[in-house]
Amino acid sequence: MADVRRARLVVAYRGTDFRGFAPNQGVRTVMGELVPAVSKVVRQPVELSMAGRTDAGVHAWGQVVSGDVPAVTDLADLQRRINKMCAPDITIRSVEWAAADFDARFSATSRRYRYHVWNDPAPNPLLHELTWHVHRPLDLDAMQAAAEPLLGEHDFASFCRRPKTPDGMEPASLVRVVSDATWSRVDDTPMLRFEIAGSAFCHQMVRSIVGTMVDIGFGRIHHTKMAGILGARSREAAGGVAPPSGLVLWEVGYDGRRWDAG
Amino acid sequence: MADVRRARLVVAYRGTDFRGFAPNQGVRTVMGELVPAVSKVVRQPVELSMAGRTDAGVHAWGQVVSGDVPAVTDLADLQRRINKMCAPDITIRSVEWAAADFDARFSATSRRYRYHVWNDPAPNPLLHELTWHVHRPLDLDAMQAAAEPLLGEHDFASFCRRPKTPDGMEPASLVRVVSDATWSRVDDTPMLRFEIAGSAFCHQMVRSIVGTMVDIGFGRIHHTKMAGILGARSREAAGGVAPPSGLVLWEVGYDGRRWDAG
Repeated sequence: MADVRRARLVVAYRGTDFRGFAPNQGVRTVMGELVPAVSKVVRQPVELSMAGRTDAGVHAWGQVVSGDVPAVTDLADLQRRINKMCAPDITIRSVEWAAADFDARFSATSRRYRYHVWNDPAPNPLLHELTWHVHRPLDLDAMQAAAEPLLGEHDFASFCRRPKTPDGMEPASLVRVVSDATWSRVDDTPMLRFEIAGSAFCHQMVRSIVGTMVDIGFGRIHHTKMAGILGARSREAAGGVAPPSGLVLWEVGYDGRRWDAG
Repeated sequence: MADVRRARLVVAYRGTDFRGFAPNQGVRTVMGELVPAVSKVVRQPVELSMAGRTDAGVHAWGQVVSGDVPAVTDLADLQRRINKMCAPDITIRSVEWAAADFDARFSATSRRYRYHVWNDPAPNPLLHELTWHVHRPLDLDAMQAAAEPLLGEHDFASFCRRPKTPDGMEPASLVRVVSDATWSRVDDTPMLRFEIAGSAFCHQMVRSIVGTMVDIGFGRIHHTKMAGILGARSREAAGGVAPPSGLVLWEVGYDGRRWDAG
């Protein structure tokens, strides 16, 4: 096989018509389209690592993917050709050479997600696929107050779908560090945005947090209960799970060392 | 027939999956869905007038529609039921009683459109259906300079698809008044927005203007040529026609008198 070199791709996709990210027999997935496209362009099979798995219907703006391609590859040409093959649902936003031990998933030190709620009696047909339509008025101040207890290091078991533990194994830790959790209104419109960043997120964590916060925004749960819900470390303590349409993997961070190839 | 009363509806829709606005045998259109939905809810046939015709693929945020419904109709209930029937592509944003002689089309005194261009080498999969992807860099200052000659009253024949004139009839006037024509960049992103308002617009006028301005933004046409293109009053003088995906009928104005029912 020809000399290979590690490449790093920043990928955006509209998750609406995908059944998730990982390759999966018989259903349309992001990796199920991306891996064959890259392999076709570089004319050899490639394996790709991805920073954050996204569920069916979840979007990405700054998903990061890494893998080895022939060292002679013209990256700008690779990007153009993949973007033609994968349009309009998947786009390579940028591509660059990375250090040989860069791994999109294991080198990642932080992830940032955005969740959009369209909070108006009338739905928004233009942004239907990118939002959760919540028709009853939400109390943004109460939702922001409920975001404060999430900051710092906690066991997020109340907001996570716990992975199956094989016999005789320790259950996986659900301890995560959240560094930002902020609600805002976009440009005086009915669009509400929740931005959350942290070390890593367990399965359905952002959607469970948003679902519980929307219950708080309705007044169904008082915002002072949030610390107790988190402390309960039980899925039963939390509210509902917000739909995938409102969620975007916004950015992945790689702090701590230089991962570029130079 | 029961007593009727004039109602005024503000309608938003995602034009992507519609073949235009007017009812049309055998194809999906906005009026082809809206008229039967309203008729079904009020249990009698209704006729609706609309402020601005939109071509296949063009969106609306503030389309206005009027028609007579039974005076006993509960408008809030009408809105909720139509929104359920027409989701997710069409939404009644608001509905109210109007003066008996209010006509969404003939009472309108101004229309405002927005056109969005995603100006980046990489397409944006999240906003693909709401934008025109232009990958080469555009000169926003040149495009804004080209917008100035459009202001005021002009014959816009260079930018209009001229309607067929029946034998022996005067050709329809293409004189229109443009009161605003402004380019801006949205939040420091690659998204460029053109906003244009005027008395009325002839067929394909906004898309032809945007197409010509993008040619100016490339440097293919110098911005000082815009006044001459307008003055030529000929389709041959203008540039291309921008695709419908970027266009939104944003707002319709009814100045000059009170059209509400009170």
